[in-house]
Amino acid sequence: MKTIQSDNYPIYFEDSIAELEKFVKAGNYSRSFILTDEHTSIDCLPLIQAQFAGHENFDIIEVNSGEESKTIDFCIGIWKMLIDFEADRKSLLINLGGGVITDMGGFAASTFKRGIDFVHVPTTLLSQVDASVGGKTGIDMDNIKNIIGTFTQPKAVFIADEFLKTLPARQILSGTAEMLKHGLIKDAAYWAALKNSDLSIPSAELIYRSVEIKNEVVIEDPKENGIRKALNFGHTIGHAVETNSLINDKDPLTHGEAIALGMICEAYLSHKKTGLSSDHLTEIVTVINSLYPKYNLAAANYETLCAIMLKDKKNQNGKINCTLLTSIGQCSLDNICTDAELCESLAWYAAL
Amino acid sequence: MKTIQSDNYPIYFEDSIAELEKFVKAGNYSRSFILTDEHTSIDCLPLIQAQFAGHENFDIIEVNSGEESKTIDFCIGIWKMLIDFEADRKSLLINLGGGVITDMGGFAASTFKRGIDFVHVPTTLLSQVDASVGGKTGIDMDNIKNIIGTFTQPKAVFIADEFLKTLPARQILSGTAEMLKHGLIKDAAYWAALKNSDLSIPSAELIYRSVEIKNEVVIEDPKENGIRKALNFGHTIGHAVETNSLINDKDPLTHGEAIALGMICEAYLSHKKTGLSSDHLTEIVTVINSLYPKYNLAAANYETLCAIMLKDKKNQNGKINCTLLTSIGQCSLDNICTDAELCESLAWYAAL
Repeated sequence: MKTIQSDNYPIYFEDSIAELEKFVKAGNYSRSFILTDEHTSIDCLPLIQAQFAGHENFDIIEVNSGEESKTIDFCIGIWKMLIDFEADRKSLLINLGGGVITDMGGFAASTFKRGIDFVHVPTTLLSQVDASVGGKTGIDMDNIKNIIGTFTQPKAVFIADEFLKTLPARQILSGTAEMLKHGLIKDAAYWAALKNSDLSIPSAELIYRSVEIKNEVVIEDPKENGIRKALNFGHTIGHAVETNSLINDKDPLTHGEAIALGMICEAYLSHKKTGLSSDHLTEIVTVINSLYPKYNLAAANYETLCAIMLKDKKNQNGKINCTLLTSIGQCSLDNICTDAELCESLAWYAAL
Repeated sequence: MKTIQSDNYPIYFEDSIAELEKFVKAGNYSRSFILTDEHTSIDCLPLIQAQFAGHENFDIIEVNSGEESKTIDFCIGIWKMLIDFEADRKSLLINLGGGVITDMGGFAASTFKRGIDFVHVPTTLLSQVDASVGGKTGIDMDNIKNIIGTFTQPKAVFIADEFLKTLPARQILSGTAEMLKHGLIKDAAYWAALKNSDLSIPSAELIYRSVEIKNEVVIEDPKENGIRKALNFGHTIGHAVETNSLINDKDPLTHGEAIALGMICEAYLSHKKTGLSSDHLTEIVTVINSLYPKYNLAAANYETLCAIMLKDKKNQNGKINCTLLTSIGQCSLDNICTDAELCESLAWYAAL
């Protein structure tokens, strides 16, 4: 597997931890910081430290794991640690963790002293195939995901499958949803390959192809004015369900579980509005439902979900804008959906 | 006076409020917000509203004036107002005020939904000749100025001398210091023109030339890797004195008063280190001292000032880096100054 070249930065897939060591040494940084959470500091940090074997002195900044930590308060904590450790403009921040770490660490670095270098070492499948590529940084506020952030590219991304071995099955499946999405929006053959694979631990080749698809899209449209919206398939409804679940459920949905649900609903809307065939709709629903547990939507108020969708930063002028499918492997951007249509799709899911 | 073209945005000098109206109408924004403080909402906002004469519905976001408001807490307040008002990605933020408003409003806009459009309507001389041009946004934290921020260009800047009429003399002088700096670092003829002018209300032509000089520098080096450092003349020491004064003085120095002091100290260092002649040093000190009151530095601990300088985002590897002069109108970048040299220059100022 070759290194993928993204928007002025490389994404490494082979000997990635050794590549990280080379990168840090070549960068001649005045200081290097590693942002971790309580899981990655135990499960992942030792692999980095073993590689460097004491040759590099890292300062560790640890935050709590979980979406509920992706807030301005934790971000202020990171900034203040950087100040206390006397980080300067030639410092490097290494984000070691899942999407919360890479999104928030990227935001903290992109705004500290008007921007210091950062790299991502994504340790979950979800962050490997999604958050670590594309230059979106962000934090949540008032229960709106990534409402505050920047478009800033990392200097490099290091994808190492060693880290996936420590992940619980549910976390793996959270990433699989984004891989399925990549097939659905852009590559029918890849969708077919995924469908016929054991997805309990996706192969390195499948992960590589997923990153390749995402990278192709974001390079073409870094600031989401056009084709990048393809990546929002399943996310208009999925994000709202995820937000609602985070607020109300004792054991909230993972991102992937919410997106899986969102993809079913939006596949239904695709069938109604953009010509997705009923065979393709059935195939999508069957594959997704075989992987993800059914979620009890009854608890959620559909009106509340629509109100959350309206606050999504992708929507403008009070209209809700969905990316839908025309067939498996092809998508259609900018489909305005009414509250009634969105509610209908939710009810259809609930009745499955 | 012609419109100055900066890095992809225009800076208007004539009929600027009318130009603002044209800009807003042409931009087809979904919503327009005006960020003000308790002064500009009374002294300046009515001029904008009179121009639009009810044709545009603005939502007003008001924050407290003064450097002590340039914090993440006030910035969170702006973000939450934007959320509450349902600002979307096609919204516009108009920053109507001095440097606190333009810096903080620029930062809030550049990070809201990963960046919405913003324009500056600078209402102080200081913000007209300095903060509003160059694409630096920022807030302070832990008493470190602009430690958090981005490099993001406004979509336009509207400079109108109507606003200066409401300013107290001390606020005018705060801006004059930056104009003097522009002459000292880049244009001896401009310095001479300033020296021979009544600076109690600088003429529109003098303001125009100041913006022109600043713009030439920042266009050449938007991210401060080289020549932009010229603009730091007087600021290494000036910023530290300003920070210290904000913390300790009942009636703190203005930015310009602190920079005026910093320019005297750094002119002294220029004489010692980069060949500024004693005639030029004397001329600089005489002009500045005729405009600005003497500050009692005795109260400040020199060691404390050096510690503040070390935290300045421009310094790296624990070394303090100054822009100095070789003569009036020419500067020299990247001069490392020791604590002893910096203390000597402060003591020299104190003994003047």
